[in-house]
Amino acid sequence: MIAEIICVGTELLLGNVVNTNGAYLARRCAALGLSCYYQSVVGDNGGRLKEAIETAVNRSDVLILSGGLGPTEDDLTKETAAAVMGRKLILDEKSKESIASYFKKRGMEATDNNWKQAMIPEGALILENHNGTAPGVIIPGEVPGNGGETEVAGKFVHIVLLPGPPSELVPMFEESVVPYLSALEPGVIYSQTVKLCGVSESKVETQIQDLIDAQTNPTIATYAKMGEVHIRVTAAAADEKEAKKLTKPVVKELKNRFGYDIYSTEEDTTLEKAVVDLLMANALTVTCAESCTGGMLSARLINVPGISDSYKSGYVTYSNKAKRRILGVKKGTLQKHGAVSRQTAEEMAKGAAFVAKADVAVAVTGIAGPDGGTEEKPVGLVYIACSVKGKVTVREYHFSGNREKIRVSTTAAALTLMRRCMLEYFSKVTFGQ
Amino acid sequence: MIAEIICVGTELLLGNVVNTNGAYLARRCAALGLSCYYQSVVGDNGGRLKEAIETAVNRSDVLILSGGLGPTEDDLTKETAAAVMGRKLILDEKSKESIASYFKKRGMEATDNNWKQAMIPEGALILENHNGTAPGVIIPGEVPGNGGETEVAGKFVHIVLLPGPPSELVPMFEESVVPYLSALEPGVIYSQTVKLCGVSESKVETQIQDLIDAQTNPTIATYAKMGEVHIRVTAAAADEKEAKKLTKPVVKELKNRFGYDIYSTEEDTTLEKAVVDLLMANALTVTCAESCTGGMLSARLINVPGISDSYKSGYVTYSNKAKRRILGVKKGTLQKHGAVSRQTAEEMAKGAAFVAKADVAVAVTGIAGPDGGTEEKPVGLVYIACSVKGKVTVREYHFSGNREKIRVSTTAAALTLMRRCMLEYFSKVTFGQ
Repeated sequence: MIAEIICVGTELLLGNVVNTNGAYLARRCAALGLSCYYQSVVGDNGGRLKEAIETAVNRSDVLILSGGLGPTEDDLTKETAAAVMGRKLILDEKSKESIASYFKKRGMEATDNNWKQAMIPEGALILENHNGTAPGVIIPGEVPGNGGETEVAGKFVHIVLLPGPPSELVPMFEESVVPYLSALEPGVIYSQTVKLCGVSESKVETQIQDLIDAQTNPTIATYAKMGEVHIRVTAAAADEKEAKKLTKPVVKELKNRFGYDIYSTEEDTTLEKAVVDLLMANALTVTCAESCTGGMLSARLINVPGISDSYKSGYVTYSNKAKRRILGVKKGTLQKHGAVSRQTAEEMAKGAAFVAKADVAVAVTGIAGPDGGTEEKPVGLVYIACSVKGKVTVREYHFSGNREKIRVSTTAAALTLMRRCMLEYFSKVTFGQ
Repeated sequence: MIAEIICVGTELLLGNVVNTNGAYLARRCAALGLSCYYQSVVGDNGGRLKEAIETAVNRSDVLILSGGLGPTEDDLTKETAAAVMGRKLILDEKSKESIASYFKKRGMEATDNNWKQAMIPEGALILENHNGTAPGVIIPGEVPGNGGETEVAGKFVHIVLLPGPPSELVPMFEESVVPYLSALEPGVIYSQTVKLCGVSESKVETQIQDLIDAQTNPTIATYAKMGEVHIRVTAAAADEKEAKKLTKPVVKELKNRFGYDIYSTEEDTTLEKAVVDLLMANALTVTCAESCTGGMLSARLINVPGISDSYKSGYVTYSNKAKRRILGVKKGTLQKHGAVSRQTAEEMAKGAAFVAKADVAVAVTGIAGPDGGTEEKPVGLVYIACSVKGKVTVREYHFSGNREKIRVSTTAAALTLMRRCMLEYFSKVTFGQ
């Protein structure tokens, strides 16, 4: 089966928004065993959207459209797809109720144009939206004839309409569209991701070049991701059991080669989740003392549900005075070595562990820029200290990019260091550097 | 003149790479006054690429293709574009020399397939590549007839071929393509964005439906963005001065209608920047006491360079004990009303202002889920308190979505509330709700 992705929105055509939906949908189609030969972007224009859908039904079996399901007049996707398929739009009472309750819950009132979102093409499946007001829609059926002119009249197609915001599109796709598409295409594509932290993508590539070169089924591909490298092992087979049998020896070989640099092989496990799992497994409490990251590290840890057993309190100590007053960093240390120094990072971690009464304390201090850099201490210089039961490790880092990128990289490095220090302390693992 | 963007590469079709070239080229075309109605992605497949180029010469005047200029067999863009335009490929000696010297400089030797990159379509302009080996190409000219069958035979088009890596494409576009395209299309497209917070997109749309309906030049479009709504006003004119003259009255009218709900009309100003500007303008210090957001609010504020004058310290008080110990929330308040309550939020804000000696203190407490919700206090219930010079405002919110979405929405709402409270206190502005 051939799939085609059409992303709708003038903001995409103007380049105001990068089309991440396109990449996400393409990746998921590939994983579901659908061949995707075309992706396109059209603006909020009825005529051109109609043309794009007509072209797509001619050459593809599954059309996935994102965007243009909103309440406003220039949201035309549902109307246009319904017209191409010869379907009327009918008010769906259940969708109307969902929209009304969405607004009620927020103490707001739905405006008249919101009911447009409850209009559903005849014979379509409705996909519930738990993260917004626009329901998704799947229109399965035969392409209608246009007095004999359409070549593909009678061809059976599946048109999937999804909301544009990724926070709505992704959960809807995973919950409702994956089961639908899986049923269409017998045979599976199964992927397992081996997730590493603290190593560079080029180093990983070099170490598995022989495996990549020898790959046929499963295939092996690496992806760099903010301080992490993911190796994706993908097998095609008749069923999941068969596919897992193909990926298993490859994953095992990767585990042999990378050992503890792998933090997880689970789809749902993020780096912060791996860190929190280690905290939980060792019944440890944790605290953070952040300067340049300014709360980002705590925010990532707290994104893990159930963290409340470990994380009680944390500190954003942005000024020197706050470092002294809250964490007890010595005035002399700040004067002699500066706020961005190995010594200050160490005292911050020790102080945080003490005031928060935490088993693990991680402290971050650095120069995120754009100003504040000197020749000796340039923008991107960061010190991270991690104390585990009083044993403190301090490391120096040099990051590049803008202020935000430096802060995000620092946060990933802090999580990586926390993980290493806990493994070294509790599991007697030794890391290279 | 109508432009069309075609990005070539199987890695894009599989979703392994996000198509940032598409967004970059679209943005630059718009700025150069070219209307871009279509973007598409095709894989490294000669037949489908030919089809895409033929479709594009039919409906557009300027085709911009990226990718597929490499030395390998599946790099087909130049060959295919030349075929559609009826041009032969001829070895360009100067390009051959550049490629040889590129390799020599790196102590490497060019392989035979590298000379493929020096083959240039007859009558094409060559764009030097200072960051890689593949030269870019512009093929200007009339679409050839195919025995009278092609509708557009004789139409004059410009086909621009650029290398795929952004580090090569972007400098080549800026250096060589911008001057070329500027000469084709006198005139500019100028956009101004009016940014609002604390209002819903559908409400904004309703309030400006008359303006949208009456729009021709400039056009008006709204975009929802995590707790914000952006209205984009875009004008086409002979020059920037003329374009600004067209957008100015519309922006003025939007300012009349939305007043202080608009936090900025500057391209670079984020909501957190608007909040920090208000802090600076009133010489205020600020602190945050965060429970469910766990540092996210501080992290957004600290993303603004120069925040160190205002932000000294902040607190992540995740446990009840931390709320009591660090912020001085009363045990009785927690017992009687719970951690997620109007009363606790208020005491957190007051306590944070006191311990941090800050003029403005904002406190956040809520249930981010997925667990911890009850019928009375469901997941998504959040209280935010903001204290400005001792005057405390507390508001109740109901957010939906997963844990991360609730926390991100809460952070945007906290910034919106901070802004409102400061404007009410210092500028005597009154807000609706």
